[in-house]
Amino acid sequence: MLLKGRGGGSPCKSHRLTATMSSAARPDPAETPEEQRFLSTEEAAALERELLEDYRFGRQQLVELCGHASAVAVTKVFPLPTLSRKQRTVLVVCGPEQNGAVGLVCARHLRVFEYEPTIFYPTRSLDLLHRDLTTQCEKMDIPFLSYLPTEVQLINDAYGLVVDAVLGPGVQPGEIGGPCTRALATLKLLSIPLVSLDIPSGWDAETGGGDSEDGLRPDVLVSLAAPKRCAGRFSGRHHFVAGRFVPDDVRRKFALRLPGYTGTDCVAAL
Amino acid sequence: MLLKGRGGGSPCKSHRLTATMSSAARPDPAETPEEQRFLSTEEAAALERELLEDYRFGRQQLVELCGHASAVAVTKVFPLPTLSRKQRTVLVVCGPEQNGAVGLVCARHLRVFEYEPTIFYPTRSLDLLHRDLTTQCEKMDIPFLSYLPTEVQLINDAYGLVVDAVLGPGVQPGEIGGPCTRALATLKLLSIPLVSLDIPSGWDAETGGGDSEDGLRPDVLVSLAAPKRCAGRFSGRHHFVAGRFVPDDVRRKFALRLPGYTGTDCVAAL
Repeated sequence: MLLKGRGGGSPCKSHRLTATMSSAARPDPAETPEEQRFLSTEEAAALERELLEDYRFGRQQLVELCGHASAVAVTKVFPLPTLSRKQRTVLVVCGPEQNGAVGLVCARHLRVFEYEPTIFYPTRSLDLLHRDLTTQCEKMDIPFLSYLPTEVQLINDAYGLVVDAVLGPGVQPGEIGGPCTRALATLKLLSIPLVSLDIPSGWDAETGGGDSEDGLRPDVLVSLAAPKRCAGRFSGRHHFVAGRFVPDDVRRKFALRLPGYTGTDCVAAL
Repeated sequence: MLLKGRGGGSPCKSHRLTATMSSAARPDPAETPEEQRFLSTEEAAALERELLEDYRFGRQQLVELCGHASAVAVTKVFPLPTLSRKQRTVLVVCGPEQNGAVGLVCARHLRVFEYEPTIFYPTRSLDLLHRDLTTQCEKMDIPFLSYLPTEVQLINDAYGLVVDAVLGPGVQPGEIGGPCTRALATLKLLSIPLVSLDIPSGWDAETGGGDSEDGLRPDVLVSLAAPKRCAGRFSGRHHFVAGRFVPDDVRRKFALRLPGYTGTDCVAAL
């Protein structure tokens, strides 16, 4: 998902995305093997525009669906019955954009699924949707950290896993301010499992380059709506797509050839 | 759920609800057996107010969660692998209020789950949420009937089951206009299974009386958020509650003692 909250836009965004796109050599979708039919940044933005403008999906709706599916993906890799009390603790690190909003919804559903989420959300968006989602978490007694320990061993000891909801596609670490940048530096050093939502924060959504060489190395990637190109460089253990809400016509239009969803599952393993 | 769309309010609503409530003898929650701890109309309205005002849930969010859960409940009673092609056809009858909005979401998720929904939504709300949900269904090629055959055998033959999303608690058949009232009269005569959302349309949410003597007799009831009092008179085969989004504190406050949800299930059988 690319949509940005009203609270934290960047005026140069579309310019940069266009520049990235025009220089990228895009393969013909029809010739691309099934498992590599991932979306370019431009295609992902067009897909989301289609859902919002043509299909009239609401942001609240999409964020709810994606956050719920992200929490379900966590339960598939880390099933509650296999976890000790301590392992149920999940640190959810949220950025100020759309990705962070999905993280807030994910945390709420993890609580509902009887995990023990804690949220670190240092740069709060002024967007009403983000504020409402924050209130829901606060009122459900999900603790919010006021700062993230720089001593990684403290985090390794306190949490069973970390959900990375810091940065989505098209957002650069430099844009989001000091606390989120410092949080990313800390996340890189952790030894507990890391679950990234949509893309590993800091990766270039198109190439996986930039920060990906020395960047986050998540164990689990949950692609929202459809995988972005950089997911081709993901080498962690589990890759899910959480995009069952994408209508068939849109899937066909963007030549998405993804595995089918089973039963009423909202995520599919790739 | 009691919330009404902006497009179809009734000025005498709160008066009538108050009158109903003050004459009802309410048992002490602490003395009520577990399976009968259902909400009065007044309590259901207070619970919903708490979610919307205190917890800052959005209507879009609640309707999405309830509609999704309603579709999941349908899959539990009528699992796709057991159905013939013809039995997968579902007629979803939607009223102009909140209940109808949940029906529209339910139809969309049924389509996603590979059922074949058709919608009858004769009195359209002007509410933006309803319009957006309608667009989503239309764009996903879910057919909308322009009229409902009065010849019930035509409906019995064409559909595997019917979802009743006509009237929620606190809405009387007389308020919703001719086409919905006529649809209810038709639904009473059907021999295919009927799934009612929240309450059987036309029943008094409090007593189950009024229309319940000669009213709808659904096979399946999906209580939204929590069961309403009239659910005590439901004698169909399957009763589900779709209220996993209700925070624990709210459940405690309203002394809801409902069965637990399993795994990531969004509905629980009662």
